[in-house]
Amino acid sequence: MDLATYACRSREELRIEAKKMISRYGNLLQENLKLDMSRGKPSKLQLDLVSDIMTELTDAEQCIINGNDCRNYGDLAGLRCAREYWADVLGCKPEQTFVGGNASLSLMHDLIARAYTHGLKDSPRPWCKEERIKFLCPSPGYDRHFRITEHFGFELITVPMHPEGPDMDVIEDLVKDPQVKGVWCVPKYSNPQGYTYSDETVDRFANLKPAAPDFAIMWDNAYCVHEFDGEFEPFRDIVSLCAEAGRPNMVYEFASTSKITFPGAGISVMASSEENIKYHTKLIGVQTISYDKVNQLRHVRYLKDKAHTLELMKKHAEILGPKFEMVLKMLRSELTNKGIAHWHHPKGGYFVCVAAMPGTAKRTLELCKKAGVVMTEAGATYPYGHDPHDSMIRIAPSLPPIEELEKAMLVFCTCLKIAALEKYLGLEIIE
Amino acid sequence: MDLATYACRSREELRIEAKKMISRYGNLLQENLKLDMSRGKPSKLQLDLVSDIMTELTDAEQCIINGNDCRNYGDLAGLRCAREYWADVLGCKPEQTFVGGNASLSLMHDLIARAYTHGLKDSPRPWCKEERIKFLCPSPGYDRHFRITEHFGFELITVPMHPEGPDMDVIEDLVKDPQVKGVWCVPKYSNPQGYTYSDETVDRFANLKPAAPDFAIMWDNAYCVHEFDGEFEPFRDIVSLCAEAGRPNMVYEFASTSKITFPGAGISVMASSEENIKYHTKLIGVQTISYDKVNQLRHVRYLKDKAHTLELMKKHAEILGPKFEMVLKMLRSELTNKGIAHWHHPKGGYFVCVAAMPGTAKRTLELCKKAGVVMTEAGATYPYGHDPHDSMIRIAPSLPPIEELEKAMLVFCTCLKIAALEKYLGLEIIE
Repeated sequence: MDLATYACRSREELRIEAKKMISRYGNLLQENLKLDMSRGKPSKLQLDLVSDIMTELTDAEQCIINGNDCRNYGDLAGLRCAREYWADVLGCKPEQTFVGGNASLSLMHDLIARAYTHGLKDSPRPWCKEERIKFLCPSPGYDRHFRITEHFGFELITVPMHPEGPDMDVIEDLVKDPQVKGVWCVPKYSNPQGYTYSDETVDRFANLKPAAPDFAIMWDNAYCVHEFDGEFEPFRDIVSLCAEAGRPNMVYEFASTSKITFPGAGISVMASSEENIKYHTKLIGVQTISYDKVNQLRHVRYLKDKAHTLELMKKHAEILGPKFEMVLKMLRSELTNKGIAHWHHPKGGYFVCVAAMPGTAKRTLELCKKAGVVMTEAGATYPYGHDPHDSMIRIAPSLPPIEELEKAMLVFCTCLKIAALEKYLGLEIIE
Repeated sequence: MDLATYACRSREELRIEAKKMISRYGNLLQENLKLDMSRGKPSKLQLDLVSDIMTELTDAEQCIINGNDCRNYGDLAGLRCAREYWADVLGCKPEQTFVGGNASLSLMHDLIARAYTHGLKDSPRPWCKEERIKFLCPSPGYDRHFRITEHFGFELITVPMHPEGPDMDVIEDLVKDPQVKGVWCVPKYSNPQGYTYSDETVDRFANLKPAAPDFAIMWDNAYCVHEFDGEFEPFRDIVSLCAEAGRPNMVYEFASTSKITFPGAGISVMASSEENIKYHTKLIGVQTISYDKVNQLRHVRYLKDKAHTLELMKKHAEILGPKFEMVLKMLRSELTNKGIAHWHHPKGGYFVCVAAMPGTAKRTLELCKKAGVVMTEAGATYPYGHDPHDSMIRIAPSLPPIEELEKAMLVFCTCLKIAALEKYLGLEIIE
């Protein structure tokens, strides 16, 4: 009986299930839990794993590379060796990279800010002079992406996500509108669903023919080497693909070491056409003299190259993998065949996304919060924080130790069941 | 005769002096020099002096402060201990500080950018929606300041500089115009003249009553602890002074460790009213999750507090002091009483500013360049790179070793004399 979907159960059977869940929830409440699955934060174990990086650079003479002293001013686009490192990881050329500080989010924000105040390379005018700007947001997606474009007053347009990536029919249609100036993408292990764009999707992005001459594909390759299950999955160089398709200036790729070394003290990169990199380096020259090149050198010495980085990512996977297994095991054992939730089994990235029965996501998270389990707010993965179906829930299992995670998932599944039961029964069963 | 001003010499006497200088210049040309006095870059000796900072933080457990892990995401306004450090140095409260990345220039740029796109705390509207924005530029001043406000299309208004600071009569008059939205200041050891604002000047700034409700004093305290000659000169807390005068949100103070530890890898701070800091922290939250807190902790451990920082600055002074002495000695011995240049003898900062005879600065630097000595471009210290008198020349003696500096100064003084002689004689004496 436990395996039958709630939809097929009698009201009496649902009441019995409800009683069980009420009792279980009551017991969980008494544990006074305090568990956090809200953000994709690496755990202490992962940080300890890479803390040797702090002793990578200890001597003054190490800081002088090809006659340049990385401790001093200069080298705005980044140390040559750091640009080579990222070119190796991303599959592009060093001249197509700009190496930034500890946050790729800042590179993205600042790019949009510069588009707004000065325009991109091929802009007829700064975006603040346009009557209206629209931006495409494949959803569910990353709240911090959406917030940047909302912050500058753009109209956010939701585009459906599929397992092979954003709905390209919809996107190809929408970009005919010259007010549509760009799109947010997480091409590998998308945040939050963990989908990797198919080759066809990537090709269709590279071959987009938007009406806006300065249309920007914001290609946030945040999880480009972030497998936690199985071998590294190669990805294609979007910078070359756009160039081959005749629109070299259309794409800006981003990546960082935030989830390779330290989230708060890594290095970041923006990759694009050489022409774009030159254009933006000139504008960034008004903002700074250079980013932290000592930390760039520290990273290059520690990470060496793509191959060595991939070896390190296997060690991260040893820590992360069991946590994701636990999340998926709990989802399977608690929610399979109930017809009240479905989810994708990702091979990398930092999230599992559960699509709950429509109208139950907010209630589920409300119940979780009462029981001491903090999750990303319901709706956060949609533009303006509004999930039209009140369904998507993002689980971020990286931070808690595995014992806590099991408990947190038990709370989560219990709350999701209660919310579904309430929906079927038409009444609140927990105050 | 050598001590007489050029203005009092006969044409024949000037010709004799010209011959001497032509011969000296010819000899210097043959040395094929390559010397750089263009930028306020610390020297290798100074960088080596502080390179122990790289071993300050080597162990994972050191990174956990009051239960927070500085390696991870979070703490947008900066580590508490970093905010306390800067509050100690600047004389304000930790809550009045925001600790940034390696460049205070970025904090300044981003503040102006946010004023432009979203407005400051007390702005009626974003500055991009204003018909016209004017910004006050006490000159000579710092080219990178002026460039930020030029970049956003503001009209730059030159304000004369005096030994006690900017001409406050002029400023008090100009701020009656509501289109005047701010002023650039370097209150201690001003770039490039090395002037320190008098108490009266500081008081008059704090008591400004600008017509614009969102008028911003950009108080770049870049050289706040940077004496190279004599004891530390205390400075007043502008944040308190503005609050006492009833306009707490009018001032933004900036500082960094760029010339305390590493120019390219230090930490920076913005200090202002608590209300302003809260307002901007919220907006910066769209741009980043946090600045590099590992580097913040590394700095706090290394620099400890203001008293310990001042001890370190004495060691910098031991390296810098003799270079400034050399510059001033050469200026005295070559140019005193010629009536063709005057200068101030600074006690701190990174520059000596020579006011050459009007109409001779460009020519002097052209001749220097030919002889292999690179200096900051003539005009750079004025808005739009245009010195109306073609007179101000900024000397940055920090980078070259002292032997090179003596040679570079000989070239400089020779070129300045040649340019003056050409002016008096009415002909070019060097091709």
